[in-house]
Amino acid sequence: MTLPKIRLRQYLPILDWAPKYDRDTATSDLVAAVIVTIMLIPQSLAYALLAGLPPEMGLYASILPLVAYAIFGTSRALAVGPVAVVSLMTAAAIGNLGLTDPAQIAIAAGTLAFISGVMLTVMGVLKLGALANFLSHPVIAGFITASGVLIAASQLKHIFGVKVSGHTLPEVLGSLLENQGDTNVITLFIGVSATAFLFWVRKGLKPLLISTGMKPRLADILAKAGPVGAVVVTTLATWGFGLADKGVSIVGSVPMGLPPLTMPSLSPDLWSQLFLSALLISIIGFVESVSVAQTLAAKKRQRIVPDQELIGLGTSNIAAAISGGYPVTGGFARSVVNFDAGAETPAAGAFTAVGILFAALLLTPLIYFLPTATLAATIIVAVLSLVDFSILFKAWSYSKVDFAAVAATIVLTLGFGVEIGVSAGVLISIGLHLYKTSRPHIAEEGLVPGTQHFRNIHRHKVETFAHAVTLRIDESLYFANARFLEDYILDRVARDKALRHVVLHCAAVNEIDMSALETLEEVNRRLRETGISLHLSEVKGPVMDRLKRSHFLDDLSGSVFLSQYDAWQALKADGRADPEATERLAAQ
Amino acid sequence: MTLPKIRLRQYLPILDWAPKYDRDTATSDLVAAVIVTIMLIPQSLAYALLAGLPPEMGLYASILPLVAYAIFGTSRALAVGPVAVVSLMTAAAIGNLGLTDPAQIAIAAGTLAFISGVMLTVMGVLKLGALANFLSHPVIAGFITASGVLIAASQLKHIFGVKVSGHTLPEVLGSLLENQGDTNVITLFIGVSATAFLFWVRKGLKPLLISTGMKPRLADILAKAGPVGAVVVTTLATWGFGLADKGVSIVGSVPMGLPPLTMPSLSPDLWSQLFLSALLISIIGFVESVSVAQTLAAKKRQRIVPDQELIGLGTSNIAAAISGGYPVTGGFARSVVNFDAGAETPAAGAFTAVGILFAALLLTPLIYFLPTATLAATIIVAVLSLVDFSILFKAWSYSKVDFAAVAATIVLTLGFGVEIGVSAGVLISIGLHLYKTSRPHIAEEGLVPGTQHFRNIHRHKVETFAHAVTLRIDESLYFANARFLEDYILDRVARDKALRHVVLHCAAVNEIDMSALETLEEVNRRLRETGISLHLSEVKGPVMDRLKRSHFLDDLSGSVFLSQYDAWQALKADGRADPEATERLAAQ
Repeated sequence: MTLPKIRLRQYLPILDWAPKYDRDTATSDLVAAVIVTIMLIPQSLAYALLAGLPPEMGLYASILPLVAYAIFGTSRALAVGPVAVVSLMTAAAIGNLGLTDPAQIAIAAGTLAFISGVMLTVMGVLKLGALANFLSHPVIAGFITASGVLIAASQLKHIFGVKVSGHTLPEVLGSLLENQGDTNVITLFIGVSATAFLFWVRKGLKPLLISTGMKPRLADILAKAGPVGAVVVTTLATWGFGLADKGVSIVGSVPMGLPPLTMPSLSPDLWSQLFLSALLISIIGFVESVSVAQTLAAKKRQRIVPDQELIGLGTSNIAAAISGGYPVTGGFARSVVNFDAGAETPAAGAFTAVGILFAALLLTPLIYFLPTATLAATIIVAVLSLVDFSILFKAWSYSKVDFAAVAATIVLTLGFGVEIGVSAGVLISIGLHLYKTSRPHIAEEGLVPGTQHFRNIHRHKVETFAHAVTLRIDESLYFANARFLEDYILDRVARDKALRHVVLHCAAVNEIDMSALETLEEVNRRLRETGISLHLSEVKGPVMDRLKRSHFLDDLSGSVFLSQYDAWQALKADGRADPEATERLAAQ
Repeated sequence: MTLPKIRLRQYLPILDWAPKYDRDTATSDLVAAVIVTIMLIPQSLAYALLAGLPPEMGLYASILPLVAYAIFGTSRALAVGPVAVVSLMTAAAIGNLGLTDPAQIAIAAGTLAFISGVMLTVMGVLKLGALANFLSHPVIAGFITASGVLIAASQLKHIFGVKVSGHTLPEVLGSLLENQGDTNVITLFIGVSATAFLFWVRKGLKPLLISTGMKPRLADILAKAGPVGAVVVTTLATWGFGLADKGVSIVGSVPMGLPPLTMPSLSPDLWSQLFLSALLISIIGFVESVSVAQTLAAKKRQRIVPDQELIGLGTSNIAAAISGGYPVTGGFARSVVNFDAGAETPAAGAFTAVGILFAALLLTPLIYFLPTATLAATIIVAVLSLVDFSILFKAWSYSKVDFAAVAATIVLTLGFGVEIGVSAGVLISIGLHLYKTSRPHIAEEGLVPGTQHFRNIHRHKVETFAHAVTLRIDESLYFANARFLEDYILDRVARDKALRHVVLHCAAVNEIDMSALETLEEVNRRLRETGISLHLSEVKGPVMDRLKRSHFLDDLSGSVFLSQYDAWQALKADGRADPEATERLAAQ
């Protein structure tokens, strides 16, 4: 009975690496886990803040989900946990519900993670990973950039110490301008200093440390620990100068202890309200996660299994839902750090979970005086690295269609929020693709003299016949372009009364669906009525197999030629045999 | 100033034929108009009944709209007016509103025609006729068949003389079974006799008349007038025997006179409620109309202009809206009759309008005693010719994907009504197309010995290299299949450590969108990291033009070959120059 064993191994990638786990691997994983833990503590608090949730939920979302991923995930380096974009989408989803009771908000966030987890797991079991491909790269890039801008804007309220509402850029900025009179100057000072410090750490600290003779590896780790430095300094300052009494918003008391066991709501009402949000979060989270996992795996010539990744992320989200967390996915920056720090197996994630558990058990009292402005600064500096408007220029120069999709995604995300932005992006990508393929390129071909090659008559000097025309179709034929082809052929024929043969050169036709088949039947019928034969040349094997299953070939007025040159030879003979052909040509 | 003149002529096709109009053409058009008028009088009353509207609205929808189409339409033979499927869709759209006041229902129907008219006209001016192509042929066929069944079922209430509600097959049949106790036996007798008579007229009358020595043309006209015979006989019987007092439902008083001038509602509420219905009616109406217009035009080697057809149908619907009518389009059966009867210009439609106007002015008192069961019989016999389940078998044998789309459209239309049915059909067509193209066919190729041809290594006996693999991609590359390609290539490479070259044979790649470009860049980068060169061969002109506008070709680790044979020759040389190649092969 080896089959069940293979099956089990397929769904439990841990069985691949755990049996071979040794001390060396453990050491590498441990070092990586320590570095990621240091990075993750302030991030998890900050992202919970971004999601509009109490900070401890960020910590809880960084414990059990990592263990689940270590068991079910296939990437050796992916660091799962709260991430910026998914946290923003969580905020938008919960915002839609109009809840005010913090307990209900926490339940809704857990439920969102649960629905998303179930969706991902089901998609994984059904091997539907390919669904994520319907987000085109430019749309993803535009969406991430716009989300970065939205996230940074949403954090300005913590930097200024004012109340701001809204989920779109105009709402957030309008609300900020309206309430700017309430700005708390000390908060603003902390926020701006922390942001400036973190930018400097990111850009200038590592080179500086290296120039003092420090080893690059250590310099890198110290630079990564920058946010911890900002957290420590601003917490101490707030505590020491009693700034909380002067209006500086602080994190306050965070419960100390193990993550609670939580039950997601099973209310059908709440599920139907959260369904679409959960779907979008699942897809965006999966796309982000898989792309970083693939990049990192490829560096070591390893492979990840996208459908199993769905199960890994799905179980992580279910784990988040039952342990007081909220939606998680594989984070880009954090996974790169994990990889660079030497993580060799998903055990690094489990070790990170232990680190965060330690923080949740012991360190929460220490962050009582941590200003929210510092966390906001962490977020702003982190997300601005996601912002890259150069995709607009790149898309413009490559393809106007792709540009339209990116620009619309960015504008709609900024103007109407993340959910509308990403939904519109998907629909626009699909719509524009269909539009493009609905007007296929059709070239009229002639023979390049002295060869057996055929080329576009408008681009090359080629031989043609008066009594026959060859049309090369540069697209698969399906319902959206069938009528275009029909119009094109009938139009071409109506303009030229001398024609007696039409050849469709099908080398680039990868498929003919039933609509296109019916169109070809109709074209054949109409051409026959006006005394014109329809021929095909270079039909591909799979297309031919299918045509043979219909009556089309029986009714075809002309022939099917193996090569376009064969067609040319046959029609040449027919042209000679036809005494009127030259006359008709002369009469034109 | 010829440009404005050309423009005007483009939007007013009447300018093409009216100046050349002569007595002969007028005679042909008049004969056709008389025949169509005789056919249209009972049809227009019956379809109004089907739409849940008073019978006179059917007459009104057959006057001004025909004049508008004669001015703006491009088809010489299309007969515009109320048709079965659009009447059913009108009933569904109005039913959604939950109105009970007949005056409000009439306004809603006019408004629906107006919105649809504006949509069609705007689509025509913007030249968006191609939008209709997103309905695949099998989906249309399935939808028309299911609609025919629904329409026939909806008319059973008039045959049985009972009250029936609902817009789906289970609702209608369930309601019929429930109320069957109320059946009026006289109504049932009239209904069944009329239905049987009309079936016989359709199938048996013409051959019978011809066998008596009548000319086929006259026999045909008499057979077409069959419904008028049924109307006359049953009306006389109902009047003579006083059947209306015995519970036989009759048409009753129909206002006599010119069509009223009506104003569509401009209420934003009503517009937003009717918007989607109007869009679906516009698309279905346009598709039905254009397909019959094209078929008829082709028979005389004429062409219609689909975008101008949108304007023709749009203005017809606006005309219907302002003259007491409801949504209209080009009817299939009626247009064929018009064509067969010899209509040569759209003036035949205008003459028909005069005929119907005459009926509205003078004949309405004569139909007071017309039983609705007779009209229902007319509808049932007309629509059952639309029902053709053979599309299911045809689709099954040709392509399972097309079969899925047809079957879903039929089941959803019958089970959930016309609007859900046709919307689902469109979405399913698009979804299945995307799914198919998201998993492109990729063939590993080798050289057919002694030729310059390359074939699939799994189907043919071909030569291959140990150090190089050629993959032929049988699909355009775009966002939905980019990742599939990436997975495929990286997977192929991971399995074969001897590889140093990957050639992508691109003869069937008609497009590379930006997502696919990024994927190729990524594949190139990853292959380079593992010491493998990526080459392209037979890249098409337009694709190459676009690639040149990106950095891809600069970064490409390998070469771009004009032909696959060139690639083969170059790699063969490299294989010889590489002493390790054979060793690596041997070590495997």
